Amino acid sequence: MTLNVYLAGEIHSNWREEIMQGCADIDVQFSAPVTDHDSSDDCGVAIMGAEADKFWHDNKGAKLNAIRTRKAIGDADIVVVRFGQKYKQWNAAFDAGQAYALGKSVIVMHQAEHQHALKEVDAAALAVVETSQQVAQILRYVQDGSLPT
Amino acid sequence: MTLNVYLAGEIHSNWREEIMQGCADIDVQFSAPVTDHDSSDDCGVAIMGAEADKFWHDNKGAKLNAIRTRKAIGDADIVVVRFGQKYKQWNAAFDAGQAYALGKSVIVMHQAEHQHALKEVDAAALAVVETSQQVAQILRYVQDGSLPT
Amino acid sequence: MTLNVYLAGEIHSNWREEIMQGCADIDVQFSAPVTDHDSSDDCGVAIMGAEADKFWHDNKGAKLNAIRTRKAIGDADIVVVRFGQKYKQWNAAFDAGQAYALGKSVIVMHQAEHQHALKEVDAAALAVVETSQQVAQILRYVQDGSLPT
Amino acid sequence: MTLNVYLAGEIHSNWREEIMQGCADIDVQFSAPVTDHDSSDDCGVAIMGAEADKFWHDNKGAKLNAIRTRKAIGDADIVVVRFGQKYKQWNAAFDAGQAYALGKSVIVMHQAEHQHALKEVDAAALAVVETSQQVAQILRYVQDGSLPT
Amino acid sequence: MTLNVYLAGEIHSNWREEIMQGCADIDVQFSAPVTDHDSSDDCGVAIMGAEADKFWHDNKGAKLNAIRTRKAIGDADIVVVRFGQKYKQWNAAFDAGQAYALGKSVIVMHQAEHQHALKEVDAAALAVVETSQQVAQILRYVQDGSLPT
Amino acid sequence: MTLNVYLAGEIHSNWREEIMQGCADIDVQFSAPVTDHDSSDDCGVAIMGAEADKFWHDNKGAKLNAIRTRKAIGDADIVVVRFGQKYKQWNAAFDAGQAYALGKSVIVMHQAEHQHALKEVDAAALAVVETSQQVAQILRYVQDGSLPT
Amino acid sequence: MTLNVYLAGEIHSNWREEIMQGCADIDVQFSAPVTDHDSSDDCGVAIMGAEADKFWHDNKGAKLNAIRTRKAIGDADIVVVRFGQKYKQWNAAFDAGQAYALGKSVIVMHQAEHQHALKEVDAAALAVVETSQQVAQILRYVQDGSLPT
Amino acid sequence: MTLNVYLAGEIHSNWREEIMQGCADIDVQFSAPVTDHDSSDDCGVAIMGAEADKFWHDNKGAKLNAIRTRKAIGDADIVVVRFGQKYKQWNAAFDAGQAYALGKSVIVMHQAEHQHALKEVDAAALAVVETSQQVAQILRYVQDGSLPT
Repeated sequence: MTLNVYLAGEIHSNWREEIMQGCADIDVQFSAPVTDHDSSDDCGVAIMGAEADKFWHDNKGAKLNAIRTRKAIGDADIVVVRFGQKYKQWNAAFDAGQAYALGKSVIVMHQAEHQHALKEVDAAALAVVETSQQVAQILRYVQDGSLPT
Repeated sequence: MTLNVYLAGEIHSNWREEIMQGCADIDVQFSAPVTDHDSSDDCGVAIMGAEADKFWHDNKGAKLNAIRTRKAIGDADIVVVRFGQKYKQWNAAFDAGQAYALGKSVIVMHQAEHQHALKEVDAAALAVVETSQQVAQILRYVQDGSLPT
Repeated sequence: MTLNVYLAGEIHSNWREEIMQGCADIDVQFSAPVTDHDSSDDCGVAIMGAEADKFWHDNKGAKLNAIRTRKAIGDADIVVVRFGQKYKQWNAAFDAGQAYALGKSVIVMHQAEHQHALKEVDAAALAVVETSQQVAQILRYVQDGSLPT
Repeated sequence: MTLNVYLAGEIHSNWREEIMQGCADIDVQFSAPVTDHDSSDDCGVAIMGAEADKFWHDNKGAKLNAIRTRKAIGDADIVVVRFGQKYKQWNAAFDAGQAYALGKSVIVMHQAEHQHALKEVDAAALAVVETSQQVAQILRYVQDGSLPT
Repeated sequence: MTLNVYLAGEIHSNWREEIMQGCADIDVQFSAPVTDHDSSDDCGVAIMGAEADKFWHDNKGAKLNAIRTRKAIGDADIVVVRFGQKYKQWNAAFDAGQAYALGKSVIVMHQAEHQHALKEVDAAALAVVETSQQVAQILRYVQDGSLPT
Repeated sequence: MTLNVYLAGEIHSNWREEIMQGCADIDVQFSAPVTDHDSSDDCGVAIMGAEADKFWHDNKGAKLNAIRTRKAIGDADIVVVRFGQKYKQWNAAFDAGQAYALGKSVIVMHQAEHQHALKEVDAAALAVVETSQQVAQILRYVQDGSLPT
Repeated sequence: MTLNVYLAGEIHSNWREEIMQGCADIDVQFSAPVTDHDSSDDCGVAIMGAEADKFWHDNKGAKLNAIRTRKAIGDADIVVVRFGQKYKQWNAAFDAGQAYALGKSVIVMHQAEHQHALKEVDAAALAVVETSQQVAQILRYVQDGSLPT
Repeated sequence: MTLNVYLAGEIHSNWREEIMQGCADIDVQFSAPVTDHDSSDDCGVAIMGAEADKFWHDNKGAKLNAIRTRKAIGDADIVVVRFGQKYKQWNAAFDAGQAYALGKSVIVMHQAEHQHALKEVDAAALAVVETSQQVAQILRYVQDGSLPT
């Protein structure tokens, strides 16, 4: 049983790498958004031409990124959504909403300070954790039944 | 053709009433979340008993509210999502994600200052507006084809 | 917003009537299985002819009842599943499984003594309660936002 | 044609191994829940932290197990559900309900004494058997058309 | 709970009227194919112009009839399929296959002589009967729980 | 049985009115796009503000119109698509593609000169006609079984 | 692009082998029902025990065969249904109905004498042919675009 | 993450080869319609026999081609639709409509002169481009996040 896991949300720390390293020896396939911030912001105009209006600049880029996101969420069994300490991160909550509506198993990762603001997202999740290590432990348990010792 | 419209998001201003008034004479059915802030926060423990831990206090309430939200989004043709000036409003983005994944037509309403942070949500929408009046005009146009004069 | 609620499970007490009475003044439509125990057991052979083998006697009846159950669960927004004090009640858990897989909002009602045995069903529910009064309060809150005073 | 089979239900005997051995030479892929009883009960708190309340202790664990169950049922062509001699086993009936609603072919395995109590589940099944050997024979017949001699 | 019932199959006897009369006082909505044999055969060319080739003559007509059949099966909760004494009646079995794949509850009605030839269709049904009276009794039981006395 | 019919395509002749008049006495509900050409082109900028670039001017309008189209096609049992004598009419073919993929019954209406160019669309249709009168005759036959005399 | 093809219907001639041989050098995966007539009839009682009543004897067998049929049709891109010269063959039409409702591409194979009786099935098909050679030619064309010379 | 891409539309230039060459070193699987114009037009009668009427000649061929198109669109993550300079190309818009309704990510490729006529198709797309090179750049960015330098 190969688990297909999409790692959504915050792109300014190395939490994805931590999870992948923690699962290096088990049968899990990971996917992720483009995590280079500038590429993610400017991909649309870089390929399809500049826009005078910031709205359309962002619109072109967000749609290109959506091609990847929709594919990855659609293929996933599990969607892990991390909310970091900074920024609005509405795209993370938007991904969580899509994943939930599509019947994916959702794992949410955030610090205690955001607990009340994320209560609707947490209520839709099958697990709520604070650390990458916990995500890796969950994936290992789901995959082969072993628990941390 | 009756339009079924769910008004998601911000609950601290009277934008829902403005839209409803602007559509009072056309065939539109509106639904909304419970907009009493205290009821929304405490409904779970009020009915099912107190919790020592804030996480479970919120979890019980968020799940009760989800019964209403899921029904309303599921029945809707159009989901209007408003992002206000304050708070994290992750639940608004979460509702938008669900609506999009379920194939609902999404209208997003926010001020210009949030444009960049909401680019993924906006990119999934069929209309992005700033005012309640614009939402009412859109619903009227969709319903009967008339435009503001 | 009319709520469509299916009341599944135990048929030896008047819990359904209590819920309906508690919701008499709000916009909720209820459905239920055939609650006459003998009719439910014997409907198949009564209409389609006797069977020598108890397995087929029961099989004929269970399939007729399934016509009603599938219709009712399919139409429901919310499925309330009550586990009583007696019997195996595997059909209640089976209905809960169907409801969950179909994306219905599930409310589970049982006494504390069954908590551990029902943990998988409870984990799939949006509310877990002990009394009919609590179910009625939840339906009222979901319908119009009012809480018990 | 690879058959994907999920073996749900009772975890206190070696029926899964018997089926797998009986199908060792044909093209069938098996999956199963975590069958270590203690791990299954305590996985949630082991990874995500202790809970004072037994309900939430169990809730955390049941949700982790649901990640695996949902994946396995979702991938399965056939779901075999065994009801043993002991315990309530509502989770087995709950899995059967999910499998049936998702259009999976359901095989039920139980002793004659539970026939009447399981009539609704049996009525939804494409085969009802008593032994592991019969399940293996069915899978072999479905796979390559050969019958026991 | 209104039951929506499609009466498929044989068009040379008055079995539909018998069922409708037997259900005149309960909440059931019936639909049926066009039962005028000549109209059903010739509708296509009557509206869209003659065809030299019998295959296309029939093709045009069968497609018009499919507009009605697809609508009626799609709206139905229950599809009753009657196989008469004469003709190939492949369209009846074809309708049964569609109904089954769409998750409709299927009731099959035929004489004992066709039992072996219809075993696959019967195995997909929730009830197999011989008479219109039995169908009416089933619909009554599903609707209000009352059995013939 | 109420038929719900969406009339897609050409907006420069009165074919919709002809069909509606021909069906005035039977149980058919019609929907249609906004057929005022200027409103349809300019609705987006009229409500949401002018665009310097024609692409975005059209994009805003086309998305507003899509809210109506998606609702109408989604609710329809039958989608009639008319290709007129002029213009590219790619939106008509685009609507036909959506309708077909969603399992709607498609009726195509065009002159003989476009037969070869429309062969893929015609091949997906259940009826291909040249006149409004023929569409009305089909809807009448599907509704009540009567043929033109 | 691997084509997955299910060969349904008549089991008394070697038409399946002819198609497979005609496609031996292209990328097509075939599946089929169990074509041993006695095994197909008696599989249920052979594994699950004898039945006194012929109806239940057949019912047990038909349900086992359904496990294979549902899997094969569900996995198929294309379902070829052959109607032979003899027998009622309602199961072939039943399979065709399932395949059509599930959105599979249906190819029907029969002699001219059955044309009128099969008009509804033919009208749902994307190809109607008389010989195995034609089926093989179609699969080859769909796979690689080459036509018979 | 393997991207599955269907290249729909115009068949009179080598745009498909340009895209495939531009993506030769990344993990993308391409599919396409039969691009030999004569084969595409005549496949139906070549295999299934001549037709006197051009409508049925084309109908037979279009249905064979639909077997391939439906398979390819169904398997695709991304559907690229190119509108060339000539012809009506209603089949391209029809494919785009199917792809959009099935939730595929749509990329549209056309020259500026067709912008207004294609506004509804463009509005449903996640990217609108003019050249094969841009399509290849988009697929590369979606696949591995790298942008043209």
